[in-house]
Amino acid sequence: MINIAILGATGYTALELMKLLLRHPGAKIVALTSREEQRPVEEVHPSLTGQLDLPLENLSPAEIAGRAECVFSCLPHAASAKITAELLELGCRVIDFSADYRLDSPEVFQKWYGEEHPDPSRLGNVPYGLPELFRSRLTGVNLIANPGCYPTSAILPTAPLLQKRLIKPTGIIFDSKSGISGAGRKPKLNVHYPECNENFSAYGVGTHRHWPEIEQILARFTGQETSVIFTPHLVPMDRGILTTAYCVPTDPKITQAEIESALREFYADEPFVHIVKTLPGTKDVSGTNRTHIAVRVVRDRVVLVCVLDNLIKGASGAAVQNFNLMFGYPEISGVGK
Amino acid sequence: MINIAILGATGYTALELMKLLLRHPGAKIVALTSREEQRPVEEVHPSLTGQLDLPLENLSPAEIAGRAECVFSCLPHAASAKITAELLELGCRVIDFSADYRLDSPEVFQKWYGEEHPDPSRLGNVPYGLPELFRSRLTGVNLIANPGCYPTSAILPTAPLLQKRLIKPTGIIFDSKSGISGAGRKPKLNVHYPECNENFSAYGVGTHRHWPEIEQILARFTGQETSVIFTPHLVPMDRGILTTAYCVPTDPKITQAEIESALREFYADEPFVHIVKTLPGTKDVSGTNRTHIAVRVVRDRVVLVCVLDNLIKGASGAAVQNFNLMFGYPEISGVGK
Amino acid sequence: MINIAILGATGYTALELMKLLLRHPGAKIVALTSREEQRPVEEVHPSLTGQLDLPLENLSPAEIAGRAECVFSCLPHAASAKITAELLELGCRVIDFSADYRLDSPEVFQKWYGEEHPDPSRLGNVPYGLPELFRSRLTGVNLIANPGCYPTSAILPTAPLLQKRLIKPTGIIFDSKSGISGAGRKPKLNVHYPECNENFSAYGVGTHRHWPEIEQILARFTGQETSVIFTPHLVPMDRGILTTAYCVPTDPKITQAEIESALREFYADEPFVHIVKTLPGTKDVSGTNRTHIAVRVVRDRVVLVCVLDNLIKGASGAAVQNFNLMFGYPEISGVGK
Amino acid sequence: MINIAILGATGYTALELMKLLLRHPGAKIVALTSREEQRPVEEVHPSLTGQLDLPLENLSPAEIAGRAECVFSCLPHAASAKITAELLELGCRVIDFSADYRLDSPEVFQKWYGEEHPDPSRLGNVPYGLPELFRSRLTGVNLIANPGCYPTSAILPTAPLLQKRLIKPTGIIFDSKSGISGAGRKPKLNVHYPECNENFSAYGVGTHRHWPEIEQILARFTGQETSVIFTPHLVPMDRGILTTAYCVPTDPKITQAEIESALREFYADEPFVHIVKTLPGTKDVSGTNRTHIAVRVVRDRVVLVCVLDNLIKGASGAAVQNFNLMFGYPEISGVGK
Repeated sequence: MINIAILGATGYTALELMKLLLRHPGAKIVALTSREEQRPVEEVHPSLTGQLDLPLENLSPAEIAGRAECVFSCLPHAASAKITAELLELGCRVIDFSADYRLDSPEVFQKWYGEEHPDPSRLGNVPYGLPELFRSRLTGVNLIANPGCYPTSAILPTAPLLQKRLIKPTGIIFDSKSGISGAGRKPKLNVHYPECNENFSAYGVGTHRHWPEIEQILARFTGQETSVIFTPHLVPMDRGILTTAYCVPTDPKITQAEIESALREFYADEPFVHIVKTLPGTKDVSGTNRTHIAVRVVRDRVVLVCVLDNLIKGASGAAVQNFNLMFGYPEISGVGK
Repeated sequence: MINIAILGATGYTALELMKLLLRHPGAKIVALTSREEQRPVEEVHPSLTGQLDLPLENLSPAEIAGRAECVFSCLPHAASAKITAELLELGCRVIDFSADYRLDSPEVFQKWYGEEHPDPSRLGNVPYGLPELFRSRLTGVNLIANPGCYPTSAILPTAPLLQKRLIKPTGIIFDSKSGISGAGRKPKLNVHYPECNENFSAYGVGTHRHWPEIEQILARFTGQETSVIFTPHLVPMDRGILTTAYCVPTDPKITQAEIESALREFYADEPFVHIVKTLPGTKDVSGTNRTHIAVRVVRDRVVLVCVLDNLIKGASGAAVQNFNLMFGYPEISGVGK
Repeated sequence: MINIAILGATGYTALELMKLLLRHPGAKIVALTSREEQRPVEEVHPSLTGQLDLPLENLSPAEIAGRAECVFSCLPHAASAKITAELLELGCRVIDFSADYRLDSPEVFQKWYGEEHPDPSRLGNVPYGLPELFRSRLTGVNLIANPGCYPTSAILPTAPLLQKRLIKPTGIIFDSKSGISGAGRKPKLNVHYPECNENFSAYGVGTHRHWPEIEQILARFTGQETSVIFTPHLVPMDRGILTTAYCVPTDPKITQAEIESALREFYADEPFVHIVKTLPGTKDVSGTNRTHIAVRVVRDRVVLVCVLDNLIKGASGAAVQNFNLMFGYPEISGVGK
Repeated sequence: MINIAILGATGYTALELMKLLLRHPGAKIVALTSREEQRPVEEVHPSLTGQLDLPLENLSPAEIAGRAECVFSCLPHAASAKITAELLELGCRVIDFSADYRLDSPEVFQKWYGEEHPDPSRLGNVPYGLPELFRSRLTGVNLIANPGCYPTSAILPTAPLLQKRLIKPTGIIFDSKSGISGAGRKPKLNVHYPECNENFSAYGVGTHRHWPEIEQILARFTGQETSVIFTPHLVPMDRGILTTAYCVPTDPKITQAEIESALREFYADEPFVHIVKTLPGTKDVSGTNRTHIAVRVVRDRVVLVCVLDNLIKGASGAAVQNFNLMFGYPEISGVGK
């Protein structure tokens, strides 16, 4: 039984994480932190009423390390790396939901996140927590960078095809659509209900921070530079991401069946990735840790449609997979049937 | 052509008001105020792009009065009465969307709104802008208290029945349900998209400020004290109010047809109130200034279902009706076919 | 391990039931029936992809009984009782989601459901599957009438107060609001997306079939005739019911604290019923088998607000509770943490 | 004053059309047809209560022509051309909402719509009712093919750039997202509320019938063959289309300002097309006949984001523009400020 602390426990990914860990036979939540709220967690998350009798607390790294072996950090970028560095010194293992340890270079981090990286020496050596691609690097480690939600939906359908050289590494377009929970729990005008309900909008075209993450991870996995375009959109629903990927095949005569077959082979033993025939919707995987991918060949392009739940496979479910790899539990504990 | 200023023009009721007035043959919008935003209105309300070439400005009462004959105030309570008093001195006519001039007594105002009333001497003499009940008091006046959205949906179905002594003035229950725009445009956690989407909740049970307004106006119109219970709820949709009213008939043998007939007679010449046979939904009147009312008699109760668009009949559409009465235009100008 | 068949497996309650039973350590789904669809269940319910490898089949009662010890019937009323009678003869135990065995009298059934009851002799002897009220009658039985979703939300907050004579058995008003999944999976105009989205409507006022069920069960539990008014409404969301109950206290001086205390005492040992301070929303219990109840005293009324997930506590979760009682499993197996 | 008949008046585009025409000073609706419903239109469309006192009727072409000069056909494809041919013989002018007269070739029609074209001789000579591109061909004609909603959102942002040879005619990707009303009013499982609410899905990838329409009209307008990929998606909202277009510039050094400038110049005198700086959402134009287009240059692509209301600019508003051109009214009558 591993004692667990969750940092930044007022948000949506933390809430989903708590719900998953409450079902995990080897996890025990012992501390929840928040700088802004210090009261019982069920007052902040009424859906936990009667399920978790813990307060939100403003705890120091030493206090956290005194209680927990494993820390899930749901803190904002920069803030997360700052405390993570301290927690690692104190002997904790950390799964970091922020972007702090995803990018290899402090310069790239500073360019996209606008701040100096608080723990630059670790960059480049932290495994990226996408077990389907990097499982062997994740077992037993002390620190894992939990992937971004959009990158997971972009990387899973394309990485195997790039690796097998079935699609070209340039000219890939990721047109992504996300439910509103991806924007977090802090009230802002653009996610105020009457602003985004009955509305569909594009945002961050050419400027979203998940863009360099996608390119870097695709390059890291496939060993070749990739150049992609990434366009996120906001969908008036709570949760779910659908990414439509447009790729140029290396062989213009490739068929849908060949692409499907390559993906099926790659993901044959993966419990959470399914290649499906019918075009999927986000609801097919809502509330689960699963990803469904469909393939179509249209004119001179391979079109891939990937759906996942941004709060689970795109965040907390992946984090539980990573926790299981870190501590030697079966990978599906807490997140599978 | 009346020159018009709109105060607090960043909100939803102001936006609807602008859209209605842009179609009004006798209205010209000449000034828009905001304390927080000073930039072209179409930057704040993209739906006005190309429709209204005016900036939001931080204007003094004198500047407003220098440009406009008629002022619609969409300011918060207390702030609204403060500037209204000045504008009236400067010769403007004012239609006030806030609750400031709806209640008769400064004490009642202070009890429910938690502030001293800034213009107490006018209270008790300001007409309540529900033309269907108080038309004769609204023509040509200088100041009108525009009704609350919930009160309109509660008062319209019941006031004629109370006046005709068909239902008892006590034991009335108003169970009301409103779209989220009723909460305004300021981001807050309870109306943050992922909080209220896929959610239906009760709020303000026994404490909502529209409660005393309902009782006072029903008493004013019918000449008898009324005692009601008012329970508001939040519906995950942009706009619309449905109020289900439960009333005790004075004659236990009264029929649905008799109640319908009484309402039809009362509203026979009203362009915006329709008594309907089929149980209505808010969408039947969405985007319009109309109210639909249906009647059922169930056991020992008369059940009335009233729908309206909270931003139009519940706010800006009623305000345009009031503007028309104030300045002698046909009452449907700008709000009807 | 109990072998289970689910009849009418294409609908929403069946889908939720499958998801719950897949987590149940003592349940094994061995047969799924449908008259209209005969293909793999994951084609009809894509969210089951990779989770349940079974076809939908058109099976005879004998075939069902040959495979399963326990049958959950999600068939429509009348159709359900017809096959249930046969299955009981063949030795199966049955949990019936339809209304067929909820009412005591064939005449009342015929009046409200418009059909002759196919199995009238059992009426009056079938336990009503609300364990919080009738647990002792449910253990080890062969047939359980699973409760309606609206009745559960009306009965749970009021039954203890009626039993303790804290509220009067007449003049109770249940104003209920339900998500759209309550209308089932068969496409119809009133639940076509653009008809009910951005819409809130009343329906079935004074005519809904759950009305007599509520009155009968309250009478059965409390030993006194009750007279209620029940008004259902449709909320533009997938799932969730909120019922606002207006009751007349027997002691006009009763306080909120006294009512809360009575409810807390009654439900003290219940894992699925929580008395909460803050007014609840349906999202607080969405996806769970839990019910939250809040109390307010307003003027001369006790106002109770009850929320539950119509597909879980209002249907499939309650059914799993009943399954557990029927077969001797811990009541929370498959539906609690 | 032109007497107007609307065929297939039970659907959503017909409803929007009626609302627009009720405001049009030169249009009088005199007949509404439906094969399935023969009752007052306000029973089928409650939002027309008190607004339009006409029945739905099952009328022959001769009866229609006996009453109306102008016919708007909202009938399904094939059915529409059949009656249109007759109405034209009888002297009516027709604006056809179906796809029947949009494509140039009977063979292409048959391939994509699976039926023989009922009026093949007219194909190739019917003007396409997108006034911003083809105004001169629309004035005073007897028959107009009203454009599809997706094609309008794809063609408006790209046609001027193709015409000016600023983007290449190949490799264009249109990733389109539409509200549910685009699927019509007939209940079907995929647009049943609980199926598409809280869901975002792709459909018709590589098979949607609007694909050849887009390519043909772009070719017709620009005089060069174009090859595009078109992917539609369903958004859980009533109305609105957002199309994200990815284009390859002919000059790799072209800037956002140059593209914007080209579009602004082309649409300088158009009342319904606005080039905007901020990335738009569908709500910016909801309920209006307007289109907002934003430009970004990302890596080696020009990314265009276009929003419109599928029921208005994508259907009934464009039809009123066409009506105005057909009969010599100002083009904004009934659809502008």
